[in-house]
Amino acid sequence: MDYAQESLKKHGEWRGKIEVISRVPAKNADDLSLAYTPGVAQPCLEIQKDPQKSFELTRRHNMCLVVTDGTAVLGLGDIGPEAAMPVMEGKCVLFKEFGNVDAFPLCIKSKDVDTIVDTISLISGSFGGVNLEDISAPRCFEIERKLKERCSIPIFHDDQHGTAVITLAGLMNACKVTGRALESVRVVVSGAGAAAIAITKLLMQAGVEDVVLCDRAGAIYVGRESNMNEVKNEMAQITNPRKVKGSLADALVDADVFIGVSAPGLVTTAMVESMAPNPIVFACANPTPEIFPDEAVKGGAAVVATGRSDFPNQINNVLAFPGIFRGTFDSRASDINDAMKLAAAKAIAGLVSDDQLSATHIVPEAFDERVAPAVAQAVSEAAVASGAARPQES
Amino acid sequence: MDYAQESLKKHGEWRGKIEVISRVPAKNADDLSLAYTPGVAQPCLEIQKDPQKSFELTRRHNMCLVVTDGTAVLGLGDIGPEAAMPVMEGKCVLFKEFGNVDAFPLCIKSKDVDTIVDTISLISGSFGGVNLEDISAPRCFEIERKLKERCSIPIFHDDQHGTAVITLAGLMNACKVTGRALESVRVVVSGAGAAAIAITKLLMQAGVEDVVLCDRAGAIYVGRESNMNEVKNEMAQITNPRKVKGSLADALVDADVFIGVSAPGLVTTAMVESMAPNPIVFACANPTPEIFPDEAVKGGAAVVATGRSDFPNQINNVLAFPGIFRGTFDSRASDINDAMKLAAAKAIAGLVSDDQLSATHIVPEAFDERVAPAVAQAVSEAAVASGAARPQES
Repeated sequence: MDYAQESLKKHGEWRGKIEVISRVPAKNADDLSLAYTPGVAQPCLEIQKDPQKSFELTRRHNMCLVVTDGTAVLGLGDIGPEAAMPVMEGKCVLFKEFGNVDAFPLCIKSKDVDTIVDTISLISGSFGGVNLEDISAPRCFEIERKLKERCSIPIFHDDQHGTAVITLAGLMNACKVTGRALESVRVVVSGAGAAAIAITKLLMQAGVEDVVLCDRAGAIYVGRESNMNEVKNEMAQITNPRKVKGSLADALVDADVFIGVSAPGLVTTAMVESMAPNPIVFACANPTPEIFPDEAVKGGAAVVATGRSDFPNQINNVLAFPGIFRGTFDSRASDINDAMKLAAAKAIAGLVSDDQLSATHIVPEAFDERVAPAVAQAVSEAAVASGAARPQES
Repeated sequence: MDYAQESLKKHGEWRGKIEVISRVPAKNADDLSLAYTPGVAQPCLEIQKDPQKSFELTRRHNMCLVVTDGTAVLGLGDIGPEAAMPVMEGKCVLFKEFGNVDAFPLCIKSKDVDTIVDTISLISGSFGGVNLEDISAPRCFEIERKLKERCSIPIFHDDQHGTAVITLAGLMNACKVTGRALESVRVVVSGAGAAAIAITKLLMQAGVEDVVLCDRAGAIYVGRESNMNEVKNEMAQITNPRKVKGSLADALVDADVFIGVSAPGLVTTAMVESMAPNPIVFACANPTPEIFPDEAVKGGAAVVATGRSDFPNQINNVLAFPGIFRGTFDSRASDINDAMKLAAAKAIAGLVSDDQLSATHIVPEAFDERVAPAVAQAVSEAAVASGAARPQES
């Protein structure tokens, strides 16, 4: 199928992929007196006394804001807020269909970090959580950090944390398949954008000790001078314990795991051959991976994953974010913390049973209906255990 | 029924009166490839080339922002943004159920005019129109004016313009019942808030020449010094051609029409007796009118209307705003101008046929299913005739 032209045609027919409907009857005067004036004054007054009641008396408890500035939309780059809307609506469809989370798309007409933060925090009282989407790095880090300071609801940047969760889930099972322990693998992450940084941090939370982060200039290490920024300096401090220098090819020598969230074709068969025996290759650049699976296998790769649905082992965020928000909302958590992300990754990995687990089956299928409920359950429990959940009245 | 307690109970059961649903299938990989990646890139690129395509390829064409700062909610006053949400959700229910308009509620956590204007205009690219709600006067006037300058989509403050439309519709038929012509009636409007100002302006657009606006200090006239502000000064310039001074009681002597959007009990039977023979009394303060219908009739009133559903002739905005936005969206109008408001009022008045028209039946019932389509049709035609409609591709 020519997805591009067929999708354009469908969008013209759909005229919008989401819709706001009423959950209450409005058929007679009594209905209106309860849902609207005069009755509605009473829930208003209850919320005025205790704003937390907004989670019980309005849709806030299930409503996620999906918001972008349109600066890093898919692989299209900075296409502006209106043009980002089809992606945002699509994300809202996934939230609803996979997680039964109401999600509403907004595109902000500004690229200024503080303006974006102000706008979102001023309307955050209408939502239960915020999913940042397709905001370019390194602005996305600052926006996320400032919003977490300003807002009392969970702030989640799916391009970072959703990607990190599903990548960790895949890596857990790839290690199982190849007889490795997370604590002893050498990992090379290619990319220095939102996803790469978040993946690196979450892998380390999960126990990985040896990660080398590579950007276009090669391995990032303490003291590197060219092409650095605040985030890379921070990462240099906490990664690369063996002080590896040089190119991506240099870093890959004897590495157990390659994780690419970077650019097409950066990895060759020869580079895979230089890795440790039976290496794990996650080539997740989209739509063209850092190396195609057949070439990686030719180089000796034992497990290969990509971001694509037409190869085995698709590293797909839809396995993560709907269940993560479902569990966050169910536990009314004030944050989506590392414990909750780790729990999500373990839940996803755990859905591939030992007898199903193989080099070409390390993650569940996108449409496996067990995924979102299992992730939600795990995230909700982790929220309670980590103190992020808000005690709910019975 | 005890609406207050029953409504609170219902709100606890409903847990939100609106919901965001998907309009598209998401059951398999092909579905996702069309609604989301990779297919979705194509509609994004089309909108990037021409942002107006966002009205064809996303839900924008049918999506209204219902937004407040929580400063003038019902009769409750300034209860804050979270507490305003039950009313905003209720409004969205009415938009959908009466006009098939998707409406999404947002409460902004600021009372600063420019902050509110900035916030709304930064997200306006995600909507087809904006309905301002329950924002206190005179801030609402400035917010509306600035938003109209900044945004390319229609901005409508229902507390002003919706109220003005349905009031004019009622007055048209009340004049018919009492054998009057709009051009020759003497009208006294009580109140100097959002509704009173908008009603006065629209009545004048409809041909009324003699309106006296009264606030707590009495008739507003050129040269009055106490208790004035910018808006009242402006109104003094264009109203009160006979230079009436004194109290509301003084202004009512020999008046044909009283329109109250002010406070309970301001009008007495004696004051109605002082009006012209067979006067028209619209006592729309909510929930307690300026004068109850039986007392107005005792004073000789020929037609009495209130804002309440338990008396005849309810002046109810729900007769106006759903159809107004439906017609605005259908014609993709860039503004909701006076011609469109006048057309809406005439359409509403016209739905009461000559054989139904009487002193106790000057407006259609709230649940008359003919209303919204008739208003939409009239508004859409007026949008085209007045040049506000955007030519649509066939």
